[in-house]
Amino acid sequence: MRRRSKPPSQHRRENRFPRDRRFRGDAQQGGADALVILYGWHTVTAALANAARNIRRLLATENAVRRLAKEGIDTQRFTLEVVRPHALDALLTPDAVHQGLYAEADPLPSLDLADLASYGIVLVLDQITDPHNVGAILRTAAAFAVLAVVTTTRHSPEATGVLAKSASGALELVPVVSVQNLARALETLKERGFLVVGLDSTAAVDLSAVPLEAPLALVLGAEGKGLRQGTRAACQYLARLDLPGAIKSLNVSNAAALSLYIASRAVG
Amino acid sequence: MRRRSKPPSQHRRENRFPRDRRFRGDAQQGGADALVILYGWHTVTAALANAARNIRRLLATENAVRRLAKEGIDTQRFTLEVVRPHALDALLTPDAVHQGLYAEADPLPSLDLADLASYGIVLVLDQITDPHNVGAILRTAAAFAVLAVVTTTRHSPEATGVLAKSASGALELVPVVSVQNLARALETLKERGFLVVGLDSTAAVDLSAVPLEAPLALVLGAEGKGLRQGTRAACQYLARLDLPGAIKSLNVSNAAALSLYIASRAVG
Repeated sequence: MRRRSKPPSQHRRENRFPRDRRFRGDAQQGGADALVILYGWHTVTAALANAARNIRRLLATENAVRRLAKEGIDTQRFTLEVVRPHALDALLTPDAVHQGLYAEADPLPSLDLADLASYGIVLVLDQITDPHNVGAILRTAAAFAVLAVVTTTRHSPEATGVLAKSASGALELVPVVSVQNLARALETLKERGFLVVGLDSTAAVDLSAVPLEAPLALVLGAEGKGLRQGTRAACQYLARLDLPGAIKSLNVSNAAALSLYIASRAVG
Repeated sequence: MRRRSKPPSQHRRENRFPRDRRFRGDAQQGGADALVILYGWHTVTAALANAARNIRRLLATENAVRRLAKEGIDTQRFTLEVVRPHALDALLTPDAVHQGLYAEADPLPSLDLADLASYGIVLVLDQITDPHNVGAILRTAAAFAVLAVVTTTRHSPEATGVLAKSASGALELVPVVSVQNLARALETLKERGFLVVGLDSTAAVDLSAVPLEAPLALVLGAEGKGLRQGTRAACQYLARLDLPGAIKSLNVSNAAALSLYIASRAVG
């Protein structure tokens, strides 16, 4: 990475997790030899700016090469293949908006729960499987400077393709902790001082009425299924989002955005 | 529609727009002979419950038929074809989660801007083209009881398929006003007493610092492009959403959720 200056987030993330501790885990998804597909302007340029991301292959159209130069993004440490747009079209699904940039990379190493600092807000996803939603949640998590996103190793989408595109670069900014047993992970968070609050549209209390405090873990379930029983049991509060209209549950990434907004204001 | 009781939203919507005025417009999208594809539990059952929605064809798996009966949803006014799940799979793309229900219907008639009452909150979408996002925005609009969603006739996705599924029934609940010229529509809204506020991540002022009042029109632009020049010029305020993290713009449906939350609290 040789951008003219490091983005602020990069500094912050390194402050939170010393390098030697952050990257000792197994590969985040699908084993160490899994290939991550990244496409789209924000997604690929964020990966280029992330020193921890090993790019195996980088493809760009002539237009994208010009834009990289214009924005001062140095690609000299990568072997850049200049291709025609239809070559990228052919590598992706028809609805994939690649904006002239495509990369193949190694997965980011996963973080251990033990490495998490005890402050701020952690977002916990209980088997949310839709890659558009998980990507949008990662993006919103980055926007709200969450400490980490905790997901289950099983029943979570891989951090590639559509998820990476929806995350719009956030995959490089938000540490992801992948755990085998979510209920046990919540117990660990509680031992570490986290207040654990689950979102549930049928809960008796509104989230803004819960005495929220940092460090805080906000737990979101999959649409339809909601939180699993073991997850619910591990939560210290279950709370809903008060909605005045005819529909009483939001798209899960919208629910995450609202929850993070309310929680951020409450815990300062 | 012969559900045991009308959902509350149906009452409210009829109160807002007398039937004879609501449905005099042209078909909402793609002309009067366009076919709308609806699939998924919430999407199809909301359509069955909407007296204004003309269902041409209704397909359900045996499991779905049992669930309809169990939930007391009367389908007697429709010709219901019972099919095997793979028959629905074959009608849809591989990633379409149909949950055993599929319908073909006429588009809903569009509402005229002149028919809008002057109270509450209207959401205005400036050429947001992604059907997942527009669907999620409609769902969130229904959750916040917005008066209507205003879209452009061109550069808006059709109200069918993925959009309808992402809307999770909200297509039947939120009136959609489709306009040729958005800047002119905003002028009309201002003449009608609406405060017109555009969301712009580069704006100088935070949305929660704007003196919001009802009736209010919140205007959202497409990701990347943002609001067009003519749209910006028609706004009385441009406001951003304050985000503490490294990423300064949200997925547009997440931005809509946050804006509606802030605005709903401000205008009561």
